[in-house]
Amino acid sequence: MNYSELFEQIKLKRSFLCVGLDSDFDLIPDHLKDTDEPQFQFNKSIIDATCEYAVAYKPNLAFYEARGAQGWIELEKSVRYIKEKDPSIFIIADAKRGDIGNTAKLYAKAFFESSLFDAVTLSPYMGRDSVDPFLSYEGKWAVILALTSNNSATDFETLKLDAASGGKELYREIIEQSAKWGSVDNTMYVVGATRPEKLAEIRAYSPDHFFLVPGVGAQGGSIEDVSKYGLNQKCGLLINISRSIIFADRTELFAESAHIKAKEAAGQMSAILFANKLL
Amino acid sequence: MNYSELFEQIKLKRSFLCVGLDSDFDLIPDHLKDTDEPQFQFNKSIIDATCEYAVAYKPNLAFYEARGAQGWIELEKSVRYIKEKDPSIFIIADAKRGDIGNTAKLYAKAFFESSLFDAVTLSPYMGRDSVDPFLSYEGKWAVILALTSNNSATDFETLKLDAASGGKELYREIIEQSAKWGSVDNTMYVVGATRPEKLAEIRAYSPDHFFLVPGVGAQGGSIEDVSKYGLNQKCGLLINISRSIIFADRTELFAESAHIKAKEAAGQMSAILFANKLL
Repeated sequence: MNYSELFEQIKLKRSFLCVGLDSDFDLIPDHLKDTDEPQFQFNKSIIDATCEYAVAYKPNLAFYEARGAQGWIELEKSVRYIKEKDPSIFIIADAKRGDIGNTAKLYAKAFFESSLFDAVTLSPYMGRDSVDPFLSYEGKWAVILALTSNNSATDFETLKLDAASGGKELYREIIEQSAKWGSVDNTMYVVGATRPEKLAEIRAYSPDHFFLVPGVGAQGGSIEDVSKYGLNQKCGLLINISRSIIFADRTELFAESAHIKAKEAAGQMSAILFANKLL
Repeated sequence: MNYSELFEQIKLKRSFLCVGLDSDFDLIPDHLKDTDEPQFQFNKSIIDATCEYAVAYKPNLAFYEARGAQGWIELEKSVRYIKEKDPSIFIIADAKRGDIGNTAKLYAKAFFESSLFDAVTLSPYMGRDSVDPFLSYEGKWAVILALTSNNSATDFETLKLDAASGGKELYREIIEQSAKWGSVDNTMYVVGATRPEKLAEIRAYSPDHFFLVPGVGAQGGSIEDVSKYGLNQKCGLLINISRSIIFADRTELFAESAHIKAKEAAGQMSAILFANKLL
């Protein structure tokens, strides 16, 4: 899927919602825990309840790997289920990978050939050869960590470089360098919702790229602020909401609650898209 | 396992060899590919052939994840096999993880509770809260990427910070900051063998930490150079060799060849330990 196709989906669903399938086994409703495939059953219900409003899903792999091989099986089934339901839904493997060339190549193969993911989140620390293999797949995306939503993002990401190294903050150097490796059709940046003022700055020097924005909901960011500072002329935003949708309710009514929360978020987004003449 | 216990193992085996179990399915001998558990069968033979000389093993998870759930099963079996063979062998999950706090906690649980790993490699980009959960397990280690062995390591890792941000190269800032999060008993750094001159510099300001050194063999680094610049008074080095041991020979004689190559490497290390009065 390229940039324009993703924007088409956003217009079609009137939403730029990404639902984070951080389906922590400990948090899924008790009545599902005794089923054969608890994470898949949970995801299936969440997907059914939210796919009308979600242009993207983003499972964080940690929540599946924590259950070993069985977690992988249920993740794979969840990904296939989404694509069977609607092949135009964008699926991001939140894996935060980053490894030397030959290993990165193997990860790219795993996510883009063996699995049906459209995108993978990547840590940029090791540089270009850790990202390049992901950019060689037509229609697939590298989602590069830039300014993350966690408190410790200021430990290293925001350190300022000296003049000879470009004089910018590290995350900006990463965005500007890596933008040259691929294109707006295969490179996206993670920019946390918890620092909306930074989002405006980043949008100024990165006007065309899509941003994947975590940190709305449980972490405190808001759809309004993110949209105010982050929207571009083709939307350019995927706002990820996880816990406050999928764990809005932990009883047998979890899917209904997730539906309501996703509808609310998409409603806000729809109004924002209209107000900005993007619909 | 703490620092002293790891040093004891090094003295016992007269070796600081870590064998990288980068057991790429495509590269394992053909006669194993048709067995039920090709990666496990391959690893089992490699472990049997090298455990006399290896104080540590380091499977890179990419090579297992590339095969989905089955890869995870075979990785788990390999890890258990090592610990059954010799519980004092140090096992490093080369996972290069790095995620926000609640997710990092889950990864730590997966590697240290569900699995028998002693250590995990971590990408430091997201800062302290992505590393802390790994430091809360007694006897377990965080192995933090500092200066990696790949060509693109110079894209970001070696950028110089401005005076207000400490004035050092990024990887040095990461080493010096993160050294305060844990101790020499639970924190180790990845420093590539491909830049031995840098190893000497790092050893000067990080005299006591263990370094995990990849890049010897196929990537061009040498045991002599790494030892010359990296040894400390308690060894302080684990040199990882992967392809040039495990894929020294890709016929049915692969295990014998791996044995010979591991013995050679350990022989060199033994001489170095003697020469430096560490034995």
